[in-house]
Amino acid sequence: MQKYIDLVDSALRECVKIKDNPQKKIYEAMGYSLFAGGKRLRPVIMMMTAKMLGKEPEIVLPFACAIEMIHTYSLIHDDLPAMDNDDLRRGKPTNHKVYGEATAILAGDALLTLAFETAISCDFEGVCKKSVIRAAAELAKAAGADGMIGGQIVDIDSHDEDEELLKYLHSLKTGALIRASGVIGAILSGAEGKQIDAIDGFCKNLGIAFQIQDDILDVEGNEADLGKPIGSDAENNKSTYVTLFGIEKARSLSEEYTRKAIHCLDIFENSGELCALAEKLIRRKA
Amino acid sequence: MQKYIDLVDSALRECVKIKDNPQKKIYEAMGYSLFAGGKRLRPVIMMMTAKMLGKEPEIVLPFACAIEMIHTYSLIHDDLPAMDNDDLRRGKPTNHKVYGEATAILAGDALLTLAFETAISCDFEGVCKKSVIRAAAELAKAAGADGMIGGQIVDIDSHDEDEELLKYLHSLKTGALIRASGVIGAILSGAEGKQIDAIDGFCKNLGIAFQIQDDILDVEGNEADLGKPIGSDAENNKSTYVTLFGIEKARSLSEEYTRKAIHCLDIFENSGELCALAEKLIRRKA
Repeated sequence: MQKYIDLVDSALRECVKIKDNPQKKIYEAMGYSLFAGGKRLRPVIMMMTAKMLGKEPEIVLPFACAIEMIHTYSLIHDDLPAMDNDDLRRGKPTNHKVYGEATAILAGDALLTLAFETAISCDFEGVCKKSVIRAAAELAKAAGADGMIGGQIVDIDSHDEDEELLKYLHSLKTGALIRASGVIGAILSGAEGKQIDAIDGFCKNLGIAFQIQDDILDVEGNEADLGKPIGSDAENNKSTYVTLFGIEKARSLSEEYTRKAIHCLDIFENSGELCALAEKLIRRKA
Repeated sequence: MQKYIDLVDSALRECVKIKDNPQKKIYEAMGYSLFAGGKRLRPVIMMMTAKMLGKEPEIVLPFACAIEMIHTYSLIHDDLPAMDNDDLRRGKPTNHKVYGEATAILAGDALLTLAFETAISCDFEGVCKKSVIRAAAELAKAAGADGMIGGQIVDIDSHDEDEELLKYLHSLKTGALIRASGVIGAILSGAEGKQIDAIDGFCKNLGIAFQIQDDILDVEGNEADLGKPIGSDAENNKSTYVTLFGIEKARSLSEEYTRKAIHCLDIFENSGELCALAEKLIRRKA
């Protein structure tokens, strides 16, 4: 896993290299959050997908960077005083605490913009322009009003969600981008319909398991591991898988979705890395 | 001009049509600002460029919508309390005054995301995928940290700018997107190097003339026409072309840049519409 993280990290460093111009502060602010200890889950899924399909992970690198930029911008905007008003993220002060609200808003905007600039720069032998456009369309859809942002709106507008709304919310807020990671990896690797569907199914179930584990960690995680206070869901009266089902049932649901995810990859021969990733995610402590 | 505006307006309406889902508020908020009385300057430049180059303006329509979405998102974020903290825009309450800050931030994010989704959906006979990708790259560059957002950062961080910094700031903050309008229109129309350069030169000079006229209107405009209070630049101690050069000199500079802009189009035979647009812009009252 570390080799994929190193690949995407060094590509991301190139993308936000500070230039000596009057707006250099924006690059500092973008880089601050990009390198604040993210797990790189989405890029890793994308690169492992390419690898499983027999391609070099490098061919998805521009999109892997792009999806991490989009994930990061969403966290910066999420943490703003007008949204969740969080002071800490992964143990470090949030972007607006360091750079001020105006710069944090603009750093998020700039990361989102750079994401698309980086994605469409994807130019490798064997990856046709049509696939690049199709992959960029998946990325935009997953990040937009019927994807991640849609989930955000539902999240800030609803309280005491029932199971159905909770599932809907998470399928957009965290699920859409995780699914896009696999689907884009598959598209750029030249996969066909049945293969893309299988990878989409894997990511869909993995995304739910991941979210349930998130909810569990908010109850019984370790604040030092997580880099943020636990119990914030309860404090904000948020429905979670734990408040709806209790901790034991949540744990078994997370196992169940992980099984389902892994089962989706039965049609592939080299699915070992992705299966191991799924197992690792439900054992994670942060 | 109206026919171009009608074209882009009806395409934009399609893009933000309200769906019956839990996040429909986001579409309302996006549509509110998209249809709050913008001049559609950037789409009009793009469509007139295509027309001048012998193409149907419809072939640039996805990008025309995209650039207007990006312009609109930048205004929504600009107006936020953490930025300019404006209550009125074109005589109407600003987005966050109507929908709240959190939704306004997300509506801006969603418009920026939808812009790229819309642009890369561009699919017309005679427009190759390579041109679409090249045009999308221009759009991202013009909107990003070395374009519009870069100008924003310089604007919020600097006071009493000298002439050089003022020009730099405007070349990014308003100039970059206006230039991209012409350049993208040219790329999608299959123009070559010399033609693209000429259109870029036109837009560059037009952008400066436009900004100077903006500064003049902030001093001697009519509040009813503008839909916002005048004198805000002076109140915020902002350097402008008027504070640096005085109103008379600013007026002659704006004439001069308009001449320069028009002169750039000498190599084209059908530049009448774009020339008339340039003339109209320095006579505008709002």
